[in-house]
Amino acid sequence: MRNTIGNVFTLTTFGESHGSAVGGVVDGMPAGIEIDLQFIQAELNRRRPGQSAITTQRNEPDRVELLSGVFEGVSTGTPIGFIVRNENQHSGDYDNLRSLLRPSHADYTYHVKYGLRDHRGGGRSSARITLSRVVAGALAKLVLRQMGIAVKAYTSQVGPLALEHDYRCYDLTQAESNAVRCPDAEMAAKMESLISEVKADGDTIGGIVTCVITGCPPGVGEPEFGKLHAVLGHAMLSINAAKGFEYGEGFAGVCQRGSEQNDIFLPADDNAAKGNGVRLTTKTNHSGGIQGGISNGQDITFSVAFKPVATLLRQQDTVDTDGSKTTFTAHGRHDPCVVPRAVPIVEAMAAITLLDHLLMAKTVKI
Amino acid sequence: MRNTIGNVFTLTTFGESHGSAVGGVVDGMPAGIEIDLQFIQAELNRRRPGQSAITTQRNEPDRVELLSGVFEGVSTGTPIGFIVRNENQHSGDYDNLRSLLRPSHADYTYHVKYGLRDHRGGGRSSARITLSRVVAGALAKLVLRQMGIAVKAYTSQVGPLALEHDYRCYDLTQAESNAVRCPDAEMAAKMESLISEVKADGDTIGGIVTCVITGCPPGVGEPEFGKLHAVLGHAMLSINAAKGFEYGEGFAGVCQRGSEQNDIFLPADDNAAKGNGVRLTTKTNHSGGIQGGISNGQDITFSVAFKPVATLLRQQDTVDTDGSKTTFTAHGRHDPCVVPRAVPIVEAMAAITLLDHLLMAKTVKI
Amino acid sequence: MRNTIGNVFTLTTFGESHGSAVGGVVDGMPAGIEIDLQFIQAELNRRRPGQSAITTQRNEPDRVELLSGVFEGVSTGTPIGFIVRNENQHSGDYDNLRSLLRPSHADYTYHVKYGLRDHRGGGRSSARITLSRVVAGALAKLVLRQMGIAVKAYTSQVGPLALEHDYRCYDLTQAESNAVRCPDAEMAAKMESLISEVKADGDTIGGIVTCVITGCPPGVGEPEFGKLHAVLGHAMLSINAAKGFEYGEGFAGVCQRGSEQNDIFLPADDNAAKGNGVRLTTKTNHSGGIQGGISNGQDITFSVAFKPVATLLRQQDTVDTDGSKTTFTAHGRHDPCVVPRAVPIVEAMAAITLLDHLLMAKTVKI
Amino acid sequence: MRNTIGNVFTLTTFGESHGSAVGGVVDGMPAGIEIDLQFIQAELNRRRPGQSAITTQRNEPDRVELLSGVFEGVSTGTPIGFIVRNENQHSGDYDNLRSLLRPSHADYTYHVKYGLRDHRGGGRSSARITLSRVVAGALAKLVLRQMGIAVKAYTSQVGPLALEHDYRCYDLTQAESNAVRCPDAEMAAKMESLISEVKADGDTIGGIVTCVITGCPPGVGEPEFGKLHAVLGHAMLSINAAKGFEYGEGFAGVCQRGSEQNDIFLPADDNAAKGNGVRLTTKTNHSGGIQGGISNGQDITFSVAFKPVATLLRQQDTVDTDGSKTTFTAHGRHDPCVVPRAVPIVEAMAAITLLDHLLMAKTVKI
Repeated sequence: MRNTIGNVFTLTTFGESHGSAVGGVVDGMPAGIEIDLQFIQAELNRRRPGQSAITTQRNEPDRVELLSGVFEGVSTGTPIGFIVRNENQHSGDYDNLRSLLRPSHADYTYHVKYGLRDHRGGGRSSARITLSRVVAGALAKLVLRQMGIAVKAYTSQVGPLALEHDYRCYDLTQAESNAVRCPDAEMAAKMESLISEVKADGDTIGGIVTCVITGCPPGVGEPEFGKLHAVLGHAMLSINAAKGFEYGEGFAGVCQRGSEQNDIFLPADDNAAKGNGVRLTTKTNHSGGIQGGISNGQDITFSVAFKPVATLLRQQDTVDTDGSKTTFTAHGRHDPCVVPRAVPIVEAMAAITLLDHLLMAKTVKI
Repeated sequence: MRNTIGNVFTLTTFGESHGSAVGGVVDGMPAGIEIDLQFIQAELNRRRPGQSAITTQRNEPDRVELLSGVFEGVSTGTPIGFIVRNENQHSGDYDNLRSLLRPSHADYTYHVKYGLRDHRGGGRSSARITLSRVVAGALAKLVLRQMGIAVKAYTSQVGPLALEHDYRCYDLTQAESNAVRCPDAEMAAKMESLISEVKADGDTIGGIVTCVITGCPPGVGEPEFGKLHAVLGHAMLSINAAKGFEYGEGFAGVCQRGSEQNDIFLPADDNAAKGNGVRLTTKTNHSGGIQGGISNGQDITFSVAFKPVATLLRQQDTVDTDGSKTTFTAHGRHDPCVVPRAVPIVEAMAAITLLDHLLMAKTVKI
Repeated sequence: MRNTIGNVFTLTTFGESHGSAVGGVVDGMPAGIEIDLQFIQAELNRRRPGQSAITTQRNEPDRVELLSGVFEGVSTGTPIGFIVRNENQHSGDYDNLRSLLRPSHADYTYHVKYGLRDHRGGGRSSARITLSRVVAGALAKLVLRQMGIAVKAYTSQVGPLALEHDYRCYDLTQAESNAVRCPDAEMAAKMESLISEVKADGDTIGGIVTCVITGCPPGVGEPEFGKLHAVLGHAMLSINAAKGFEYGEGFAGVCQRGSEQNDIFLPADDNAAKGNGVRLTTKTNHSGGIQGGISNGQDITFSVAFKPVATLLRQQDTVDTDGSKTTFTAHGRHDPCVVPRAVPIVEAMAAITLLDHLLMAKTVKI
Repeated sequence: MRNTIGNVFTLTTFGESHGSAVGGVVDGMPAGIEIDLQFIQAELNRRRPGQSAITTQRNEPDRVELLSGVFEGVSTGTPIGFIVRNENQHSGDYDNLRSLLRPSHADYTYHVKYGLRDHRGGGRSSARITLSRVVAGALAKLVLRQMGIAVKAYTSQVGPLALEHDYRCYDLTQAESNAVRCPDAEMAAKMESLISEVKADGDTIGGIVTCVITGCPPGVGEPEFGKLHAVLGHAMLSINAAKGFEYGEGFAGVCQRGSEQNDIFLPADDNAAKGNGVRLTTKTNHSGGIQGGISNGQDITFSVAFKPVATLLRQQDTVDTDGSKTTFTAHGRHDPCVVPRAVPIVEAMAAITLLDHLLMAKTVKI
């Protein structure tokens, strides 16, 4: 399907950047969950533009309205429809884009595929439509929280500036204390400087978001095409500007030998995973918490690469819908680096995907 | 779904390493396609173990039998069921694995998830079940060929040995002329040496497969969760031992600036993509042929990282299903590096995914 | 899936009778279709309560708002989100229903399934949620109209009062000229009298809606589980209060012999179906336009049985959520017969289902 | 999807009447179920032709082979692939059908849809392909049996000969003791006579199969498009020759008033349904065990109408693929009435559908 993801916990989204509203439908929300609206709004606020000097200044309230599926503050098990109105539209700002095909945007591909497109602000391909994912992710997190599962993402790289160590060496709660969402304050400051510098240059830069899921029980994930890392990869790669996904040792691990990368099983201690009576843990976690596509009870870890934003505040050559040469210079509100605001979106997609598979896992036995 | 992939061209697989047979059902095969059985068998042979000194010696004929959906040599549009018998089973060889949980295999996770498992040769988690993907991929290739689309993968890295240039610098047809499937003969020789050395050491090593799709028209791919690179990523990550996926500039591209990575559009020449009357090309192809999740008519390029095989021919510590400490030493037939045999599987999954979306793209207009 | 129907043209719905809004998402709307909002609203008005003395007096404006997927009056191929606000709620009216389980409603089954429910006006099980189907159906009709396909339903039976002849004997355009939507004016008057009499008695009555699709080309429908009549049946049976579905000769035809029911093929005349060069027609249409699950180019005909509405304006014995005996007497606004207002819903579900399969049919060949 | 049915317990089928084999894949079989192969084969034998004078004489052994998903006699939770070889093919018998379009068969519609078809014995549209459904149904029954759920179908009508009472007035175990599968011995004899008479006349006749599910807990079924009766209807209508579906009072109930058809709830006794602490039963079961699309703990009852078989042993006018007039007279092995052999297929589809939704119901709460 096109605009729906998931099997039993599903999200269907709709909306364009400059239409009336963006929104979606969450189907399969378990019944009986307290719906903390403030938490959902807080998650949305984490994604909101205009949070700092290094993000776009489009300052919208982005108030979510839940339209159904909640009764007296509790989920009923029926679908939750929701919308966020587009209020700060300035459609006229985009008249010059009507026939222009911006480099490395989706203008050309939408034009070719559909024969027409809403050119205002990228239309359906705008990053604004990720709002719906954050709402659904917040709902999923409310369920995961009750199961003792936490999903935490952070910026691990901006341009060439990369955190040296893995997540266990940082206090991840510190990630939200700076504008780039990097848990290392010193590195965060360097990253901010780099982004500001790039911005001043009218340019943009890429980066990497890393995500850790703790508390996931073993046994989640569905071979063969529902392998947990494959569906996580699908979900992450569907985020705007994503160019790569890896879990566990990922790409770097191809240089290792099996004797280095294998995770040796150890008998259980009190903190170990418990599944079907077998209690064990692993000496290392090169596998990233997933073996054979199924969670093994260790922390689940993965990273997502994001390209530099395609919108530059400098002139670029391009062509228009007639195929004629022209030039394009963007103005106004644009992120020089998508990564800080991608952090809550990565978490949202992880929560959605994991909850779907936690529920699926309930169906393998009677 | 668990064992089905795709929307309108779908593959459902079944089978365990040491059961009666592995097989699958291809649904949505377009009608009227000549079914070249020799080609399908030849594709299977590319995946077969025992092709050279550096792959496992399990030497099975792996004859595919198409059971339906083909009449007088032509596809009828009805589902194509197929099987490959497991003939060289040696089930007894695996008795010692019944209660053993091999490190970094799926033994533990299957045991936890299902409460029991077929322990022989990895059962459902064996690489042998990728046979079904190769058969389906061969069927998809027969259709793509008629559309002028070619899918070609090759080994671009083994351990630290990586090809220096991108695919345009090599004659990809040369990839099949050596055991590692690397298009550069000199590098291929080095890779073979490394794999042999690792094997002699009872160890294993990882690597990267790169894939190029040529001839794909613009307009293929379905935002928002059906983005072409997201479904390709899903398909690739579902292959055994895959740890990462990237397209276009991928992970390396996060260090670039937007001004470097953007692909400038150029007016059409005779070789350019043609879509809805707009004829254009791009000066560079950092996007990997996909923009906003939709093909733009340029070559589609992506890479898949594979971990070192978990089965080592040396002793490892582990635990058994009672949670007691024990050791495990593998014997017999095992690949020291999965990458050479992963090449045809990557191609197969790419062909399956692309055909599905080529057919989906026919439904966006009446 | 639960709240989604379709394969490539899909509808996902949400909403409860007395929540903020009901609505849905149409995904897969072909691009380039002019969106006639007045037509969509007119279709909604056909479903609206309070149209006559024999329908419920709940008089809501039921204004639909399209939130996305339409640009400058034309569909863009992206999902169309829409809502209809619930304005005339009177939630307090339902306080007495909080712990009451109304006979033959969904109160008990929702309570058991989910552990809680929105008791106001039936919540998710209210007929009000069919609004979303009518909106999606109107969108589908806009596409079908361009393909020369018309969907027309009418009331063929109320209680024991049944039309004597089949659809070819009536002017179906006359169905909208009376409150029961029966194309025979004399029978319509009798049906109205019966419904009024039943209403005066505090009781309700069932009926049958018959639907005819003209202009459908041959070749639509997907064996084996996507047989056109099976997916139409699924769609119809999902309408509130539906108890049965039949197509062609249906249940009555079980008494016939094959020699009576077979439809003899005839060579083509100018009005005949044309498919793959074969032009033919049938002497009779006992098959209801579908053979082997695929349309044959003749009119598609089917009927849907609706039970008497469960809400009676008289006292009934029942139990409450504690399992204690109590009684229930409904008051206020309720239809004595669901059939007249079911007519546009039957049309809507037929249009949705048919368009989905017309689009699917485009994928069987390259 | 085309050849797959279900959500978490799914069946994908393949095969043509005169290809190598028919078969399928059951995905989502719960792990840990003992697989009683004799029971599965016995179910297949119930469907087999040649069981009596009134069924077709095509006498095939129809041996099912399970290829995967079962280890040491127990289901592993991985997909179960299976095949039944076509052994008694006589393909040459069908040469005269190559260009002939048999009346009221799927010959024309397949020809139009796909541009070609396997004309031998109806190819994919043959009733022989229901074999796969019976195998999957038998697997589902093995699970249902452990949950205390029984599915029992019987012939309730042949031509005009209809059982007078509902299922509670008969000993349904008697249905298997006669060739027509009617639980009333006297009526069975009359039905047999009628079928023999029709057969002698070279003609065929329709009939009705009624099905009863006992032991289903309340809470099964998924509003809004997954209503239990809607998915049962879909499943039943997908059986060859099915023309109608009704549940509870069905079509006859449209003549009733609400005060007659409503099922009054009663406080629980020891045999009552138990759900979320509410124990109750109903005074009557006009609802057929389903309210609002969800099971209410009472017996689930429905009926399926089957048309007279289209193959007559007498001459009929028709046209060929060139659109020219010709005649057709069938010879050989054909059922004069499909209903007796449809009984096990109705049961199979009911079991498949119910198990899917029993498993789905596990996902509505955490």
